[in-house]
Amino acid sequence: MTERIFNFSAGPAVLPLPVLEQAQREMLSLAGVGMSVMEISHRSQTFDDIHQSAKQGLRDLLGIPDNYHVLFLQGGASLQFSMIPINLLPAGGGSADYVITGSWGKKALKEAKKQGAVSIAADMADSRYTRVPEAHELKLDPRAAYVHITTNETIEGVEWQTEPETGDVPLVADASSDICSRPMDVTKYALIYAGAQKNLGPSGVTLVIIRDDLLQRIPAGLHTMLDFRTHAENDSLYNTPNTWGIYILDLVCKWLKEQGGLAAMHRENQAKAQLIYDAIDATDFYRGHAAREARSLMNVTFRLPSEELERQFAKEATAAGLDGLKGHRSVGGIRASIYNAFPRAGCEALVEFMREFGRKNG
Amino acid sequence: MTERIFNFSAGPAVLPLPVLEQAQREMLSLAGVGMSVMEISHRSQTFDDIHQSAKQGLRDLLGIPDNYHVLFLQGGASLQFSMIPINLLPAGGGSADYVITGSWGKKALKEAKKQGAVSIAADMADSRYTRVPEAHELKLDPRAAYVHITTNETIEGVEWQTEPETGDVPLVADASSDICSRPMDVTKYALIYAGAQKNLGPSGVTLVIIRDDLLQRIPAGLHTMLDFRTHAENDSLYNTPNTWGIYILDLVCKWLKEQGGLAAMHRENQAKAQLIYDAIDATDFYRGHAAREARSLMNVTFRLPSEELERQFAKEATAAGLDGLKGHRSVGGIRASIYNAFPRAGCEALVEFMREFGRKNG
Repeated sequence: MTERIFNFSAGPAVLPLPVLEQAQREMLSLAGVGMSVMEISHRSQTFDDIHQSAKQGLRDLLGIPDNYHVLFLQGGASLQFSMIPINLLPAGGGSADYVITGSWGKKALKEAKKQGAVSIAADMADSRYTRVPEAHELKLDPRAAYVHITTNETIEGVEWQTEPETGDVPLVADASSDICSRPMDVTKYALIYAGAQKNLGPSGVTLVIIRDDLLQRIPAGLHTMLDFRTHAENDSLYNTPNTWGIYILDLVCKWLKEQGGLAAMHRENQAKAQLIYDAIDATDFYRGHAAREARSLMNVTFRLPSEELERQFAKEATAAGLDGLKGHRSVGGIRASIYNAFPRAGCEALVEFMREFGRKNG
Repeated sequence: MTERIFNFSAGPAVLPLPVLEQAQREMLSLAGVGMSVMEISHRSQTFDDIHQSAKQGLRDLLGIPDNYHVLFLQGGASLQFSMIPINLLPAGGGSADYVITGSWGKKALKEAKKQGAVSIAADMADSRYTRVPEAHELKLDPRAAYVHITTNETIEGVEWQTEPETGDVPLVADASSDICSRPMDVTKYALIYAGAQKNLGPSGVTLVIIRDDLLQRIPAGLHTMLDFRTHAENDSLYNTPNTWGIYILDLVCKWLKEQGGLAAMHRENQAKAQLIYDAIDATDFYRGHAAREARSLMNVTFRLPSEELERQFAKEATAAGLDGLKGHRSVGGIRASIYNAFPRAGCEALVEFMREFGRKNG
């Protein structure tokens, strides 16, 4: 086996080593089952136990109340960009408010516009997506069908520190890149969705947490697979779900509990991110992208004095066993994604590398 | 490790043991990579190599010509039931022909009706879905947008032996449960789709093989994730695909090649199925569901003299290490799913069990 490296990939991303080790042990046969989890029917008792455990794990970690469904769908957040307006934005009446704090919010907006009337409650383009709006900057429609936010913009590294106040208007959040990285007051949201491949598991599973009353609003006649009611009424088993992905997600939830739950993860994630932000702030060689008050604990984005140096930085880092630091192609720069499973030792190694690189090239 | 049992599950289904063993070895780190395949970026060179290898593997096995795209999507065949009419059934003009040979065809039809005009070219309900239509029984519209068939009905165990002649009308096939179980003349089809979880890999990956000219017909303004052009133009990487599923699918394709390819698999699958059909035909105790000329090589369905005996059969078989034989809840009876990776020894064990059970209870 090759020695494992420090993996700063933005997603799919590093998984907890004990989770991989358990999956490895059970690959040919789940204990007492005689089959791999990939080989068992999604309607078997064995898989039902895994599925219910995964749901309960998320309920326990996030404190999800009983009046919310926990669904495991497919298609990623990208399909949710469409499913949400298809289900919740009524044709020929009503409008939805979108708050744009980065690249993913723009993608969500694009799909909503195909479905119905949309209003941009705020677009932080003027700040080059370095911060989230303050309350007075939000133009919220009290009759909106919903308000959509992106809790953490993976590409820009900009994260909401607390949810906006939307009154009686349902708050819908794409939490793909910071779900379960910190405690979250689920009751403030009507719908939370997240691709699993950053903090929860492998790609190919999409978590949707949806409040019951939203299901009442869904128009009749939708395509079965695009209708949230289908998945709520069939406990995510209308069709065959990504059984392997749900199994890994269940193991990740158990690991999160062993780490002390989300409050403990939050403290650890704060400490990890602080190490890197401190290294950025220590010299003028590095410049953080996000405004201090909106800095993401998950994706630390920064620039170097030139694109040439950024390329060199990423290349030398890879050679030093620090992989995946190149910023997203749409914004450039350097991005260190340090999700729950990313070890603190990797942040320390990056800080050391940054000091040395800055000293040699500063 | 628990000893592996004989797994007759209809899907997710048994995988080749060497595939599981390789996945187990590489779980903590792909050779030379230092990360699990679940942890690497879908845009990395490492994943691109796996992805291109999986596509090429299918091209080689099925003889897919260059004017077809090979896509790996999410949402299963169930989402394709909707995506196909959304993309190919023009609003306000044109109609699609559906041939119904069992439960899955009915589900496909239901979604198409939500999208546009549909004509039932044949419905084998009168035969209790025991056979496929003969050419003279098909009422085909020469101006139809497409003709839809289900190459193998997993629940009823009814399989087309050759594709219907549809002239210039594009033939669209749900091949979820017999893809890669035998050679297939891809040029006779305009679109072939298949959930991976029977013959190709784990659940959560959907294979779509689509002929280029179909992409020209797709209306503008579709939701991005529901538009086949998105996935064709972005080589299935518009969003994060199910990377683990594609990795396993690639290993399965390599295994299929090692077995001698699809002609060799077909011979083996014929031999395996014949063992069980012979056991059914040997006595009056068992009655095959499908007409002889439509018998599936993948799902062998049969009845016993009473439902009580069927329950007893499934229960005793499970105790004997033959799992997953209970028929689908919608039709009852017994179903032995014996996909590519199911070993001949398991068929022999089932035949022996059938003889003994028939002797004791006949």
